[in-house]
Amino acid sequence: MTLKIAVVNGPNLDILGKREPKIYGATTLAEIEAWLRQEARSLSVELQFFQSNSEGSIIDYLHELEGVVQGLVINPAAFSHYSVAIRDALAFLSIPIVEVHLSNIYAREGFRHHSITSEVVTAQISGLGHRGYLLALEGLLALIESTPRTE
Amino acid sequence: MTLKIAVVNGPNLDILGKREPKIYGATTLAEIEAWLRQEARSLSVELQFFQSNSEGSIIDYLHELEGVVQGLVINPAAFSHYSVAIRDALAFLSIPIVEVHLSNIYAREGFRHHSITSEVVTAQISGLGHRGYLLALEGLLALIESTPRTE
Amino acid sequence: MTLKIAVVNGPNLDILGKREPKIYGATTLAEIEAWLRQEARSLSVELQFFQSNSEGSIIDYLHELEGVVQGLVINPAAFSHYSVAIRDALAFLSIPIVEVHLSNIYAREGFRHHSITSEVVTAQISGLGHRGYLLALEGLLALIESTPRTE
Amino acid sequence: MTLKIAVVNGPNLDILGKREPKIYGATTLAEIEAWLRQEARSLSVELQFFQSNSEGSIIDYLHELEGVVQGLVINPAAFSHYSVAIRDALAFLSIPIVEVHLSNIYAREGFRHHSITSEVVTAQISGLGHRGYLLALEGLLALIESTPRTE
Amino acid sequence: MTLKIAVVNGPNLDILGKREPKIYGATTLAEIEAWLRQEARSLSVELQFFQSNSEGSIIDYLHELEGVVQGLVINPAAFSHYSVAIRDALAFLSIPIVEVHLSNIYAREGFRHHSITSEVVTAQISGLGHRGYLLALEGLLALIESTPRTE
Amino acid sequence: MTLKIAVVNGPNLDILGKREPKIYGATTLAEIEAWLRQEARSLSVELQFFQSNSEGSIIDYLHELEGVVQGLVINPAAFSHYSVAIRDALAFLSIPIVEVHLSNIYAREGFRHHSITSEVVTAQISGLGHRGYLLALEGLLALIESTPRTE
Amino acid sequence: MTLKIAVVNGPNLDILGKREPKIYGATTLAEIEAWLRQEARSLSVELQFFQSNSEGSIIDYLHELEGVVQGLVINPAAFSHYSVAIRDALAFLSIPIVEVHLSNIYAREGFRHHSITSEVVTAQISGLGHRGYLLALEGLLALIESTPRTE
Amino acid sequence: MTLKIAVVNGPNLDILGKREPKIYGATTLAEIEAWLRQEARSLSVELQFFQSNSEGSIIDYLHELEGVVQGLVINPAAFSHYSVAIRDALAFLSIPIVEVHLSNIYAREGFRHHSITSEVVTAQISGLGHRGYLLALEGLLALIESTPRTE
Amino acid sequence: MTLKIAVVNGPNLDILGKREPKIYGATTLAEIEAWLRQEARSLSVELQFFQSNSEGSIIDYLHELEGVVQGLVINPAAFSHYSVAIRDALAFLSIPIVEVHLSNIYAREGFRHHSITSEVVTAQISGLGHRGYLLALEGLLALIESTPRTE
Amino acid sequence: MTLKIAVVNGPNLDILGKREPKIYGATTLAEIEAWLRQEARSLSVELQFFQSNSEGSIIDYLHELEGVVQGLVINPAAFSHYSVAIRDALAFLSIPIVEVHLSNIYAREGFRHHSITSEVVTAQISGLGHRGYLLALEGLLALIESTPRTE
Amino acid sequence: MTLKIAVVNGPNLDILGKREPKIYGATTLAEIEAWLRQEARSLSVELQFFQSNSEGSIIDYLHELEGVVQGLVINPAAFSHYSVAIRDALAFLSIPIVEVHLSNIYAREGFRHHSITSEVVTAQISGLGHRGYLLALEGLLALIESTPRTE
Amino acid sequence: MTLKIAVVNGPNLDILGKREPKIYGATTLAEIEAWLRQEARSLSVELQFFQSNSEGSIIDYLHELEGVVQGLVINPAAFSHYSVAIRDALAFLSIPIVEVHLSNIYAREGFRHHSITSEVVTAQISGLGHRGYLLALEGLLALIESTPRTE
Repeated sequence: MTLKIAVVNGPNLDILGKREPKIYGATTLAEIEAWLRQEARSLSVELQFFQSNSEGSIIDYLHELEGVVQGLVINPAAFSHYSVAIRDALAFLSIPIVEVHLSNIYAREGFRHHSITSEVVTAQISGLGHRGYLLALEGLLALIESTPRTE
Repeated sequence: MTLKIAVVNGPNLDILGKREPKIYGATTLAEIEAWLRQEARSLSVELQFFQSNSEGSIIDYLHELEGVVQGLVINPAAFSHYSVAIRDALAFLSIPIVEVHLSNIYAREGFRHHSITSEVVTAQISGLGHRGYLLALEGLLALIESTPRTE
Repeated sequence: MTLKIAVVNGPNLDILGKREPKIYGATTLAEIEAWLRQEARSLSVELQFFQSNSEGSIIDYLHELEGVVQGLVINPAAFSHYSVAIRDALAFLSIPIVEVHLSNIYAREGFRHHSITSEVVTAQISGLGHRGYLLALEGLLALIESTPRTE
Repeated sequence: MTLKIAVVNGPNLDILGKREPKIYGATTLAEIEAWLRQEARSLSVELQFFQSNSEGSIIDYLHELEGVVQGLVINPAAFSHYSVAIRDALAFLSIPIVEVHLSNIYAREGFRHHSITSEVVTAQISGLGHRGYLLALEGLLALIESTPRTE
Repeated sequence: MTLKIAVVNGPNLDILGKREPKIYGATTLAEIEAWLRQEARSLSVELQFFQSNSEGSIIDYLHELEGVVQGLVINPAAFSHYSVAIRDALAFLSIPIVEVHLSNIYAREGFRHHSITSEVVTAQISGLGHRGYLLALEGLLALIESTPRTE
Repeated sequence: MTLKIAVVNGPNLDILGKREPKIYGATTLAEIEAWLRQEARSLSVELQFFQSNSEGSIIDYLHELEGVVQGLVINPAAFSHYSVAIRDALAFLSIPIVEVHLSNIYAREGFRHHSITSEVVTAQISGLGHRGYLLALEGLLALIESTPRTE
Repeated sequence: MTLKIAVVNGPNLDILGKREPKIYGATTLAEIEAWLRQEARSLSVELQFFQSNSEGSIIDYLHELEGVVQGLVINPAAFSHYSVAIRDALAFLSIPIVEVHLSNIYAREGFRHHSITSEVVTAQISGLGHRGYLLALEGLLALIESTPRTE
Repeated sequence: MTLKIAVVNGPNLDILGKREPKIYGATTLAEIEAWLRQEARSLSVELQFFQSNSEGSIIDYLHELEGVVQGLVINPAAFSHYSVAIRDALAFLSIPIVEVHLSNIYAREGFRHHSITSEVVTAQISGLGHRGYLLALEGLLALIESTPRTE
Repeated sequence: MTLKIAVVNGPNLDILGKREPKIYGATTLAEIEAWLRQEARSLSVELQFFQSNSEGSIIDYLHELEGVVQGLVINPAAFSHYSVAIRDALAFLSIPIVEVHLSNIYAREGFRHHSITSEVVTAQISGLGHRGYLLALEGLLALIESTPRTE
Repeated sequence: MTLKIAVVNGPNLDILGKREPKIYGATTLAEIEAWLRQEARSLSVELQFFQSNSEGSIIDYLHELEGVVQGLVINPAAFSHYSVAIRDALAFLSIPIVEVHLSNIYAREGFRHHSITSEVVTAQISGLGHRGYLLALEGLLALIESTPRTE
Repeated sequence: MTLKIAVVNGPNLDILGKREPKIYGATTLAEIEAWLRQEARSLSVELQFFQSNSEGSIIDYLHELEGVVQGLVINPAAFSHYSVAIRDALAFLSIPIVEVHLSNIYAREGFRHHSITSEVVTAQISGLGHRGYLLALEGLLALIESTPRTE
Repeated sequence: MTLKIAVVNGPNLDILGKREPKIYGATTLAEIEAWLRQEARSLSVELQFFQSNSEGSIIDYLHELEGVVQGLVINPAAFSHYSVAIRDALAFLSIPIVEVHLSNIYAREGFRHHSITSEVVTAQISGLGHRGYLLALEGLLALIESTPRTE
């Protein structure tokens, strides 16, 4: 059976490839999504993508995931550092969640070292660029196949 | 050509499988290393393992890696939170480094939320159990193949 | 004369009844609103409801209340803890405001102990579940009938 | 059956009506108690009142409530901010407790924003003047009638 | 050649003139925009205005400015104090930016003393009321004419 | 009638043009004063200049301004961050004051983010180089012409 | 007409003369009160003394002073540092209050540097031993004779 | 010769055995005192007991101990964390003092980790239940027999 | 024999009587010095006065006092809060020192609550206006007559 | 049956008797161990001793205790304050643990007031010199005999 | 060729030898300067000395050093801890600078542990008394002879 | 007579010359030791060297120095910032100690600004590269020749 997994990207990730390429890389979000979809197919996973600069839209979207997908990959971007509302929406979900950051947020400005969403997700991957999304996918599959959170 | 990668584990990881299995899983370190070595073979990677409860021994070991391996996977365990000496030893290395934590350290006690080693590594993976080591390996390969730190 | 009072609910309250029922109860927001409307009728109060996961929509809504309603019951949920923008919108209103929280926010995670909106409202009720909305209504009526803020 | 509920007031509330009336109102404690007793009668609730400026006397009194009353309304006043001893005495009680503050303590001096007693009570009402006591009573009744802490 | 400059206003500035007039003045935003447009004409500058109470809409708008305008005047209002997402959107822009605050935010509540957006703008003007927008415009012109950020 | 305005510069601004030109520009203080005097003439404003590296001399000078000038432009430089004595001297003045900083102090070292003088001035301009002095002058004129601090 | 002034001493001052004499002196409280009463007579002031180790008793006593005495000298001793209840009781009094400390509390342990009662008294004298009570008395007389708080 | 030692218990210890038995045990204070008295007899020590919920009464009692007993065992309970007055009373005593806590206060809520009384006692025992009182007694005997505080 | 005592006033006290009279009173420094000199004569004390807005001049002056005067009254004004240099100069003096503040600095802005000079003086008087200088004088006399710092 | 208990001493305790004898006593570690072994015999307890200045060696040793001894007495010395690795090793053990400190660490430098190991041990004894080890032994016996952690 | 080096001393160092000799030694500044001049001659270095208690005078003096001397030895004394103005003046100099403290400032009061000037100097020597000046001189010579800041 | 002095180097200094040469220089530790030994000979001093990456080994070594050498030069490197155990070992030594850092630790990352070992050494030299060791040696000689710690 094909698994369904959602991949959600937060604010300013729509301009990926244009914004501070030294930190975030030159690939656009569309290119990353296309590459991910292809990789996912060989893993028998179907992906559904969402990106928004609006906190409210992301919360609305997360509310629709329960019972529809079996796992979530999310890059909350700047919202990681202050959106208690998204944190609450993530805590509501019962599926495994992997938080991804393109850059190593712990090697950047002090205010990026604290992620309030990371306390309610299953796992976190940061600093591996768009490759991080694929690893998150593989991690999710492992989590779903085994008894969840056995480690 | 076969790549060489070192996998270093810090204090109390020698008793993995016995210690607080609800948090860290029931698999022993030896089992994880055997499994990883096998997975690595299919990726044409040769692994060398090291574990120690002694900060000094880990530093000695890290000093020998330069020019010998092409990448490092390290789970500094408790040392993540206070060993400036290991941080300095990691900063000395010019190869890509992925820090791994079995549990999601950001969902545990407050003093585990801050990792001083994470500021000097390339990437970090936490919360995916022993599966995290394999993903770290894959991440390292991607980093080595592409221009390092392009994202 | 019939008083008009607005009842505003913030992010994630649309999924009330589904989300962490041990903390927030099993009743849905629609059920609460229906029950409240009925209770309000016997108090000769007319209610108008609003819920949104979007900070901007809530601000837009609050801007329209001046001169239309005589009091406001608001559960800002997660926004209580960081939305300076909603705080500013509340400070603009000259009508009495009662802030409601379903759970006792002071008995939960540390970051929920500080509510920046509570500094600009007239009163606060927390920990009484959906019953808190009705008490807030009664409190508002008392405030409106007497000279405002006499105590 | 008639319920019994205790109403406890902490330091400086004996001079209510005389002390800083702009903040605390002009009604005396005796007047509030008389009014409350009358309101309670129509709710089939019997009230027992206690006020003291002495931390030790309040603790002694709280120790006698278990098994005697079915709920507690307490305005710990200044003790909210530092009396760990009263906090411990409240934590010992198994009945529902509503903490009341006449003024909105979150809109006053910084040191009043933190209430260490609020962490061990069921609910909190602040900023509604003496009306807050009646709402607390109603809240308690709802809590006692339903399964306790269902929300 | 005519320069194009964007003037962006954040949350609650749509009710300017009605909200706390002692702090923010009695002039409405429409009046300020009309006055600014007229002043700009004599400076051979064309202005485009935007106001929103929604963080996401402001980010969407900022993403469209690159290559369209030669400078930006922004009053992020409450978002100055917590919106890392808007901060990131501003950091992405390569044009000069002047942040404007109507009131002197350093003479108000403590939480308004820290502006996280001010770290990524070129300059800041606060405390001069709507006159601040015109001075910001003049400052931008000077910045654009000379080599950018020469001082 | 000609207005008189004082322009005061604090420590190390006497070596402007020589000191860290990347941050502070290559123009000397004498050149800035000459340029400002000329610009002021066309605004029918007479300027009087003062610069000192000594906190005491600046306080002595500020004490003489009351009743002599109608406005003050001051760049307290390093004194912004710790001189309570200059802060007190500024608070004594009843004329409008604009604080100017050549660089954007909020984009520099952490200890420069806090200005204790900014709490007692009317307005602040930072990050616009020597152009900031002229804008401060224009801002002062607007403040003096209108009812003071109307915004 | 003879003025009446109350002199209140807090916890552990009953053992003055015995306790840590290097810090607090060898004179007993009875001796100080006798000496003060004599000094007061020559100033046409009548004194009434009170000492207690109990916070509640001191509050009870302070509640009785309004309308009975024209001024208060209080050495709250350890209560200075945490008794919000005594602070509130002092704030309730409309007569001038001078807080006295035998030792210079600012030259002792860090936790003694902060006195929460000092924020609500008229004046404070510390470090002058029992002589401080007499100076406090003289200060009170001056305050009562002149318009209160003229300086 | 028979030694005399005082055993003092602070607030809420009168309800020992009833209050949160998982943390504090099911034995009552009377039972502990009886057991201790018997154990003391075999050590040729005479005990005198005191318990109060009132800070002032404890201070009064401590003032009477000097010259009467040769050692003190005290469980200040909640007062450990804020009563500077009891701390001062303990500092006044010249006899050796052992502070006892039934539970390991360092493994509980953060605010219990800091004991201001522990800075002025000779020794501290925590986490050993009522057995801690007996060990404190033995420790005191050793301290009294040897030169005091030789280690 | 006539005692000699120095009275030193810090920054902005030269404009006493003109500056914020609601806080500091309407009497000028010259008037206070004249009144003090007269009062001192009846106490057989000779005074020498010094005021400066310059930290360096005050330090120079303090260096000359040793062996010349028998006591010092100093109002360091704003320098109390940050001048480590004046603190060091005061610590060098072996004569008794009384620090005076016209206003109750503990009832004003937070940054005025901490006085680094108060740690090295003998005593402190605040909140009694210019009367404080005379009380300081009397306190000094008592300190000089008795064995210094006996209390 | 004879119980086995381990007694572990951390860094710098090998020079006990030589190092700062005023704080730590003049008895050497060998003398303490000999005395303890003798005392233990009369309690039918067999002791095994370990001391090391190396964090790693202590962790190695602790890993071998599970199933071998029935209790642990540990003086982690300086490691109490920062060794998360030893803390983790202690948390792994299921036997009761008593932490001992020779001196009262709460009466010494501030950085010694916080012990991160104390959060994971059963009990703590400090300030009773080498006598503390014997009391710890007695405490352990009581804990082992009764249901563990019954209080 | 003879090198020229400036030796600058800050506040209260003019009374060296008189002030707290236990901390700062009994040698006067004149004696130290004479000894240094003699030592310098044998190193073919010419010294120029400056001491002032005035922050402004020290800044004026530092502004004159560029191009005149090849190195700077400075003991900023108390100014190390708060003078941002002197820090800025030092940052302006392009010559190597060694900061000297007579005492080990890290073993004294907490507020002396932080030196804001040390961040902008080349090196720091503390705790070696007046000998520190000579070592600073030797260090400067080594720095000037080699490529500056090669280590 | 020939003096003996120990020179101890902490973690990661074995790779000096290879590690971050821009900060630490290109000279190896062996070269520095050889150069130092030669310089020491002309000062009639015999040196003994020790380097280790292990905290425990350094403590073991320090314990052997008492009575063997007359002074100690130590570069604790990373251990300066957290090793309370090494701090305790240094405090045990009665010989003079000079702490050396190659780089100016106060101009680097924030966590390097605090050295807990510096509180227990006699003096500190930082920022002078390997030259710092020689100056430390000279400083030690001066300290040993004169009465120790006379300044």
